[in-house]
Amino acid sequence: MTGRDGGADLAPIGNSPVVILVRPQLAENVGAVARAMANGGLFHLRLVKPRDGWPQERAWRSASGADRILDAASVHEDVDGAVADLHHVFATCPRPRHIVKPVLTARGGAAELRAITGRGLGCGILFGPERAGLDNDDMARADALIRYPLNPGFMSLNLAQAVMIMAYEWWMADDGTPPRTLMTNESHIANKGELENFIRHLTAELDECGFLRNEQKRPGMVRNLRHLFERGEVTQQELRTLHGVVTELALGRKIRGRDETS
Amino acid sequence: MTGRDGGADLAPIGNSPVVILVRPQLAENVGAVARAMANGGLFHLRLVKPRDGWPQERAWRSASGADRILDAASVHEDVDGAVADLHHVFATCPRPRHIVKPVLTARGGAAELRAITGRGLGCGILFGPERAGLDNDDMARADALIRYPLNPGFMSLNLAQAVMIMAYEWWMADDGTPPRTLMTNESHIANKGELENFIRHLTAELDECGFLRNEQKRPGMVRNLRHLFERGEVTQQELRTLHGVVTELALGRKIRGRDETS
Repeated sequence: MTGRDGGADLAPIGNSPVVILVRPQLAENVGAVARAMANGGLFHLRLVKPRDGWPQERAWRSASGADRILDAASVHEDVDGAVADLHHVFATCPRPRHIVKPVLTARGGAAELRAITGRGLGCGILFGPERAGLDNDDMARADALIRYPLNPGFMSLNLAQAVMIMAYEWWMADDGTPPRTLMTNESHIANKGELENFIRHLTAELDECGFLRNEQKRPGMVRNLRHLFERGEVTQQELRTLHGVVTELALGRKIRGRDETS
Repeated sequence: MTGRDGGADLAPIGNSPVVILVRPQLAENVGAVARAMANGGLFHLRLVKPRDGWPQERAWRSASGADRILDAASVHEDVDGAVADLHHVFATCPRPRHIVKPVLTARGGAAELRAITGRGLGCGILFGPERAGLDNDDMARADALIRYPLNPGFMSLNLAQAVMIMAYEWWMADDGTPPRTLMTNESHIANKGELENFIRHLTAELDECGFLRNEQKRPGMVRNLRHLFERGEVTQQELRTLHGVVTELALGRKIRGRDETS
């Protein structure tokens, strides 16, 4: 069943964890969960006793195109049935208590899920109903609990956001994007020699206009300008622009100077 | 203005980044953003030209109690006005192009924001309108762009989820929760001596009932049982239960044995 045409061309990415929604109440939330799963590269969705039955058109409307995840979702009578073919099951639980069980952060859980799927084993993550969360019997069926570190003064997280954080950590656990890069369009990063050319150009014009006429202060002033321009990566295109700016500012001054002396 | 009583008792946590929503369209999303901010310990919200004006009752209804963040939000005519008192501004942008700018991951950005606020400087994060995202002039006002690593086949992220990921990473950047811990209620983790006591108890009963009668296989069988019980942490309470289980199973066998021989 597809609620709208043109859903994203989603497919399973490798061996990935199953998201298991236990007794979800609102179909809109199931759709929003599918969207969050797609963001993080998850595909397999199982529903245990959805309150309003299944399928529900409203789920597809709130999935923003993650239709294929909903199309492929399965429905189960109980948690046992939803996890029977899996080797590891984690349960999300914001406030665990009176229970002896390993507790993982979302990041720690994602790393373990990557290790488990990497060995070809099946795994799943239980998410409880919107209001009550998982009950004690649900949690007793899990290897470990996952508890997100979040502001203890405000832990209330909606279902789709809980899935979003887990899906994001799942994706990040196998992502190698450097924390900071300079995006440079077509232009290359200028090397130190190209930067030196510009600083010489600037210094020459500043010498000519008299800005650096104080011989005692001149070395420090040049050094301060250098510090500013050496601070980070500059592209060759940006250097060309800076050369132009200096040339044009100096030219304006020269023309004005000529006018003044004429 | 407070849309409902009993909102969470939220207050700023230290020097934290300002979330700046640029031309947000739906007031519901502004409320959901406030909720996500509260989850991650963010407090300061600024709105640039909200489409439907401000305040909007619907925002408070979707904030799930994060009222104080909305109460304290300020409204600005343009991005310049919203960032004038800040020292660093990052802009979220899912698909940057034709632009020369550092690009950070959410995690890399959160680490830099922590370093900036730790020096007592002010910083903010720009989030664009729901449909179009930030325009080129908005992005030109930022030090760096933040781009979340996510499934390239499905990048569509709603506004509150974009804020959720950033708020979560902000919180995580200063969180020391170990990735895995055993939660043990009141009971303590058993030490190796206590575990040994149980294994001896089990072995003695298995010797008595004849399960280990094959002298040649006995050492390996005991070792395999030991491997199972030594695998992870066991609490003292769990060991007491296991002692009871073995005693009772053996007792049942003894009584039955007595009946059979009588």
